[in-house]
Amino acid sequence: MKPLITIEYCPKCGWLLRAAYMAQELLTTFATELGGVTLRPSETGGTYIISLNEEIIFDRKEAGHFPEIKILKQQVRDRVNPEKSLGHSDRP
Amino acid sequence: MKPLITIEYCPKCGWLLRAAYMAQELLTTFATELGGVTLRPSETGGTYIISLNEEIIFDRKEAGHFPEIKILKQQVRDRVNPEKSLGHSDRP
Repeated sequence: MKPLITIEYCPKCGWLLRAAYMAQELLTTFATELGGVTLRPSETGGTYIISLNEEIIFDRKEAGHFPEIKILKQQVRDRVNPEKSLGHSDRP
Repeated sequence: MKPLITIEYCPKCGWLLRAAYMAQELLTTFATELGGVTLRPSETGGTYIISLNEEIIFDRKEAGHFPEIKILKQQVRDRVNPEKSLGHSDRP
């Protein structure tokens, strides 16, 4: 079973487009590694939480900002395929 | 538990953008009715299958074409909230 990502977003905040954008970035970069990305509308205002399987890898309320896509890809890469190069999205 | 939609698409066919578009249409129209929409890359070429919970509601290989968004919304509406009006996307 390939890893599953969930992006839980606040629909009333208008964050669907942002969540869908990030889903497409992840599915483009990790097309063969991921089992899927779920867009999940939250019933709690201000929610923007990204999980990989059951592990929360980003929570906007904790971070105080939205995730940077480059860093998000590094976090996913480190968990699903640590050997993978992300090209110009890679470290440093 | 709110109903979950899965869009399984063929990444090698370049159908991620189409799947993400339809996910956003459904999540906009059914923001309060759906528990989520999952974008799932298929390992089988030519796959474009939309399921609601475990029920397949559209299969491109059976239909011979992609789903029309208006009809897809009607199918989802009929299952998750039959009383809901879809405005100009609605029947006659």
